[in-house]
Amino acid sequence: MTGLYIRPGHIDLNQTKSMQTEIITIGDEILIGQIVDTNSAWIGQQIVEAGGEVRYITTIADKKEEIKHALDIASKRSDIVLITGGLGPTKDDVTKVSMAEHFGVELVNYPNVLAHIEKLFARKGRPLNDGNRSQAMLPENCTPLQNDLGTAPGMQFDEGNVRFVSMPGVPYEMKAIMEAHVLPFVRSKNSKVLRHVTTISANVPESELMKRLSGFESELPAHIKLAYLPHMNLVRLRLTGRGDDEIALEAELTGQQRKLMEVLGDVAIATEDIKLGQILGQELLKRNATMSIAESCTGGFASHLITQNSGSSAYYPGSVVTYSYDIKTSVLGVPSELLWQQGAVSEDVVKHMANRVRRQMNTDFGLAISGIAGPGGATKDKPVGTVWMAVCSNNETVTKCYHLKGNRQQNIERSSLLGLELLRKLVVASDS
Amino acid sequence: MTGLYIRPGHIDLNQTKSMQTEIITIGDEILIGQIVDTNSAWIGQQIVEAGGEVRYITTIADKKEEIKHALDIASKRSDIVLITGGLGPTKDDVTKVSMAEHFGVELVNYPNVLAHIEKLFARKGRPLNDGNRSQAMLPENCTPLQNDLGTAPGMQFDEGNVRFVSMPGVPYEMKAIMEAHVLPFVRSKNSKVLRHVTTISANVPESELMKRLSGFESELPAHIKLAYLPHMNLVRLRLTGRGDDEIALEAELTGQQRKLMEVLGDVAIATEDIKLGQILGQELLKRNATMSIAESCTGGFASHLITQNSGSSAYYPGSVVTYSYDIKTSVLGVPSELLWQQGAVSEDVVKHMANRVRRQMNTDFGLAISGIAGPGGATKDKPVGTVWMAVCSNNETVTKCYHLKGNRQQNIERSSLLGLELLRKLVVASDS
Repeated sequence: MTGLYIRPGHIDLNQTKSMQTEIITIGDEILIGQIVDTNSAWIGQQIVEAGGEVRYITTIADKKEEIKHALDIASKRSDIVLITGGLGPTKDDVTKVSMAEHFGVELVNYPNVLAHIEKLFARKGRPLNDGNRSQAMLPENCTPLQNDLGTAPGMQFDEGNVRFVSMPGVPYEMKAIMEAHVLPFVRSKNSKVLRHVTTISANVPESELMKRLSGFESELPAHIKLAYLPHMNLVRLRLTGRGDDEIALEAELTGQQRKLMEVLGDVAIATEDIKLGQILGQELLKRNATMSIAESCTGGFASHLITQNSGSSAYYPGSVVTYSYDIKTSVLGVPSELLWQQGAVSEDVVKHMANRVRRQMNTDFGLAISGIAGPGGATKDKPVGTVWMAVCSNNETVTKCYHLKGNRQQNIERSSLLGLELLRKLVVASDS
Repeated sequence: MTGLYIRPGHIDLNQTKSMQTEIITIGDEILIGQIVDTNSAWIGQQIVEAGGEVRYITTIADKKEEIKHALDIASKRSDIVLITGGLGPTKDDVTKVSMAEHFGVELVNYPNVLAHIEKLFARKGRPLNDGNRSQAMLPENCTPLQNDLGTAPGMQFDEGNVRFVSMPGVPYEMKAIMEAHVLPFVRSKNSKVLRHVTTISANVPESELMKRLSGFESELPAHIKLAYLPHMNLVRLRLTGRGDDEIALEAELTGQQRKLMEVLGDVAIATEDIKLGQILGQELLKRNATMSIAESCTGGFASHLITQNSGSSAYYPGSVVTYSYDIKTSVLGVPSELLWQQGAVSEDVVKHMANRVRRQMNTDFGLAISGIAGPGGATKDKPVGTVWMAVCSNNETVTKCYHLKGNRQQNIERSSLLGLELLRKLVVASDS
């Protein structure tokens, strides 16, 4: 997850009024960096999809004073306040006590909630204790939101024009409540529809793309925005449109994407938001072709980028990870003299590896990657980050050397992606 | 990163006064869930290590009004306010303009900062434009913090008793400024030292561990707390102590860890905070032993969990990923009849795979994993999530079948970790 950083926002979707949303995440574990707040990212995506606008994400400790303080601030600036965490018997239900105090009401027993908890326990054949029973005690002004997946119910409150929804922090329970109760409400308040269309470009840096696309971008209508989302050697170009009519908006976005593709030319490698492994897989499938990999420094990760995609068995029979010199020789037949003379990280060795794995796995294409991921393993003329790769078909072998500058994990990930991209280019070029 | 959720906080370290820290993250991309806020998690960890306390993390849009609003709230409740993002020419330096307005001061040119920017551009041989030059214009009350890694300097402000530090959002630039300027300051304000000691347990669920450790936990002195951090089949048990004397505190924590280990018995698998792949690696190194892997459904990911660790070449020569039936036969010699009679996901097939890869790679131990990661590939008697694995030494083979319930990515990750754990047990048991 490192390597992502906060980028300039090119999207300004405040052109029409939409639900001003605030997310409050309750949890010491996030404050002290033990876990990363993935709940808020998911909620943010969903709210934007539903036509709302996320203006604040606040993370606080699970203490009553902090929660009340945050509720107080939120109630003055947001239309809808989504609270996750701080529910459940081990937390002494700090969220619901804080909410009751915020609204100045008592906790009362909700018989329907208790019945639901009893049912859940009966199904598991476990006895109910007082802690479990107390989960049915909720602020008297709330609407309980049934949680089919756990014992802590969601709670909904309306105070003036502000809606508060409190949800458990467990992701699948939170998501179920969001989908059943929150998102329909946000959608109902939003007369506009929002649509995205993503185009992926490869091997051109963001700053260079911005130059090439400045004309296209300046001609976009006001309700369509372009966002640049770079990751490694790819840039996702996302067109986001807001409009009244779903079908008209989608047609308009498709038209703009076509224009964008014309400007990009063969730099564009995909017209939907998918991973590089999937893009390569689609190109292979189109040609009814297969691939195999011989990995050294990437140690299995390049194979993982292929096999993480469902359906990859259609174009991928297997790989070898040849980490040691011996295995490069015994399993892939790389001549021992070559290894000792030129080193495992060399053009001739990756050529051998790619061609041997292709024949051994009986595939149309082969990829080999050998490098120094670091921190150890560097030599005088081969510093950490030196990576040789080769891709081959039955009549062509292409090699390339990269000098990467990351830590071990980044060098492994980046080499793997660069290898897949080099192979994608060969596959696409193989038609001509 | 899914699957993590907000857990009850067992740590309450507010026993002594420490720097009350607030993190403000500026970035639309985080609000709309395009990226996950990993910067704040890193900052949180570092601040706690340095003896500070993180009380708020706030994410806002890169708009002047929002930034000023957040600064206003933060200045009233925090000792130190750490701001990331919103610096750099493409953002029109919205953060520094907002900070200048917050403090009621003008932007002025800082010649030293300009000289640094000019030097950076000269080194890259690129011309300087007005946008770059404007990065040397900073609020007149700030202390610029040199950014060796980029053109946007950090900025430090003191207002009353509150310190504000604004940093770029790019992680490595932010980290460099944190390490050079922020963390030494937080440490200097903290008379107490904070230390962690982690013990890792395997194969016992958190709720069961809590029961076993309730006696141990209740006898802990008030300045030492125990946190349960479960992930997959492991639970990290973290003892955190706060005290005046570093050496005395470390000795005390080591003593408590020894007690904890006695209660845990052979459920404890490591006494430091490392990954399962590293734990397995250490056990192999101790015995001067080696391992290899034959992967099917995990598709390279189990190998990655080994090779992501620096130094793994000492105990790991390689793997094969045999995704298709053909390759299982041609590369690993699994009898074709066996595959067609029992299926690739079967006890006999993983037995063959583990023993064959062990011999082929000439290692002391072998691991094989074959399963149905999903969503496709299920049969009537083998639903998605069925995973067979085998581990072997020269005189023993152990097999196990799991029924997992995650999505494809989770099943791949979980199978890989379960495979490493099964092998770790065999390695440890091989002494007797």
